[in-house]
Amino acid sequence: MTTPRRPPGDRPVVALDVGGTHVKAAVLTADGTPLHTESADTRAERGPDAVLETILALAGGLARRFRPAAVGIAVPGIVDEASGVCRYSANLGWRDVPVRRWAEEELGLPVAVGHDVRAGGIAEARLGAGRGCRSFLFVPVGTGIAGAVLLNGRALLGGHGGAGEVGHLVVRPDGPPCACGARGCVEAIASASAIARRYRQLTGLPPQQQVSAEQVQQRARAGDAVAARVWREAVAALADGLLAAVTLLDPQRVVIGGGLSRAGAALLDPLRAALAERLTFQAAPELVPAELGHRAGSLGAGLLALDLLERTAADRADLVGAGERE
Amino acid sequence: MTTPRRPPGDRPVVALDVGGTHVKAAVLTADGTPLHTESADTRAERGPDAVLETILALAGGLARRFRPAAVGIAVPGIVDEASGVCRYSANLGWRDVPVRRWAEEELGLPVAVGHDVRAGGIAEARLGAGRGCRSFLFVPVGTGIAGAVLLNGRALLGGHGGAGEVGHLVVRPDGPPCACGARGCVEAIASASAIARRYRQLTGLPPQQQVSAEQVQQRARAGDAVAARVWREAVAALADGLLAAVTLLDPQRVVIGGGLSRAGAALLDPLRAALAERLTFQAAPELVPAELGHRAGSLGAGLLALDLLERTAADRADLVGAGERE
Repeated sequence: MTTPRRPPGDRPVVALDVGGTHVKAAVLTADGTPLHTESADTRAERGPDAVLETILALAGGLARRFRPAAVGIAVPGIVDEASGVCRYSANLGWRDVPVRRWAEEELGLPVAVGHDVRAGGIAEARLGAGRGCRSFLFVPVGTGIAGAVLLNGRALLGGHGGAGEVGHLVVRPDGPPCACGARGCVEAIASASAIARRYRQLTGLPPQQQVSAEQVQQRARAGDAVAARVWREAVAALADGLLAAVTLLDPQRVVIGGGLSRAGAALLDPLRAALAERLTFQAAPELVPAELGHRAGSLGAGLLALDLLERTAADRADLVGAGERE
Repeated sequence: MTTPRRPPGDRPVVALDVGGTHVKAAVLTADGTPLHTESADTRAERGPDAVLETILALAGGLARRFRPAAVGIAVPGIVDEASGVCRYSANLGWRDVPVRRWAEEELGLPVAVGHDVRAGGIAEARLGAGRGCRSFLFVPVGTGIAGAVLLNGRALLGGHGGAGEVGHLVVRPDGPPCACGARGCVEAIASASAIARRYRQLTGLPPQQQVSAEQVQQRARAGDAVAARVWREAVAALADGLLAAVTLLDPQRVVIGGGLSRAGAALLDPLRAALAERLTFQAAPELVPAELGHRAGSLGAGLLALDLLERTAADRADLVGAGERE
């Protein structure tokens, strides 16, 4: 099928990636090239309505300036992409916020709303480390560990918008408690915050002395045995989680993103070895770092907006086609 | 898009489900109604070529009698559906058998070749327990434990044809060895053969005294504490496997098939409770028994053949369209 595509012309899209700390905005051309970027502080402590106002003001300003054809908004939490409602977002203090409807009313433009990690995965699929790959798993490892399952350039939603939660696979049933309420989730052992916490715990560092996962990794390289152990445990837990994902999904590739992926070979080399050790009959996926970094979310939000335009154009074409057949 | 569909007319399809013991054949109309069924013994001990000859003779006889428009063949093992090659089948003694090419040459008909569990899942999706459901997990629990991920009536292949292996999720890292080479796979604890083996082990039954998983379950109901423990361990292992699948895939439904699903509520009730206990943020899928039983594989093979005809018709339409555009 050749999908009728609205000629992009000179109208770009506005893309927003709403995080707990910053709202990143970008203006993108129809082929995903950024024309402009800016950001605002989320300041979620002001309450859910103020956060939404910040987003709409940012989008409104860009809309007046760049005259976009559509707007894409990526948000963290539980997002119902079909209705454009954010069901729940701990980071933003939102519960059942009809983001799309309010944004469309305010901006007078078509708006697509998506889950930030799935949007990031879509961006990696089309513009980043997932290019040329029919099926891959996108796993951002940062303060938490998230995930998205990408199939032919689209992200698997799941029956309730919850697919892809690699971080909450239980790999140590008697392991440390996780924020989700379970014990021994991948996130509770292999996330940047879990690595720092565990190192502090084992070394007895006072809480006021900051240590990051990056520092733990550097100390491990410098010969600190406790740091090496914590890093090894994190890699093993992540490998166990990936093993489960590979067994169920058989992806061609696993794309590791997030802050921890900046460790590069120090993370990917032992992770690749640990995963290979665990595979029995399963085919080994390629294990590669993400390419788009912190821009993945806003690029993905832009792609959601472009998809929306394409779909709108296709729907119109279908109507025309149906009329002609009558 | 409205897919051009070849008018089914009066030509049925021939469907074969090749198992390690029997080859089940069915002749199906275009809406999946069986016109005729028969079966032959696989007798895999005769060698791979003889098995293929049996299949082709069975299909050839039905083709002469029913004049089908296409043939669908479901086989166990590692199947490359795109090329119609069975890469490896322990049950049939096959390695790199180009089933589709040989069958098409022999029969002079279009042939679709698929993986037996994915084919069964497609049948459950369109004709059985997955009807009306966008995303579900099909888990046949029998001698082994297999799985298929169904999305919009189609089965997820994975990057190497290996998606859906719920039975090989590791849930007890120090658990019993599994045939796949790992330890503590769901299959090594919750399959019918694992349940029987574990009961024999704990009770010290002599090897010559047969006991089935069904009997273990009956003894558990009758108050046999060892049987109850074995059943409980199996349910817990299966629930841990399903928890991982739900966390990654967020299916709307989980369809339990295979011989063990005949235990009905004795399996599904405690399994549902055990899964519910383990969920933290994940939405609970519906947990239901399969509807098509041992017919799922051959019905699925028939659906693959019907899909092939539909695709062939659609390809032709595209060619016509392309010609017109030139």
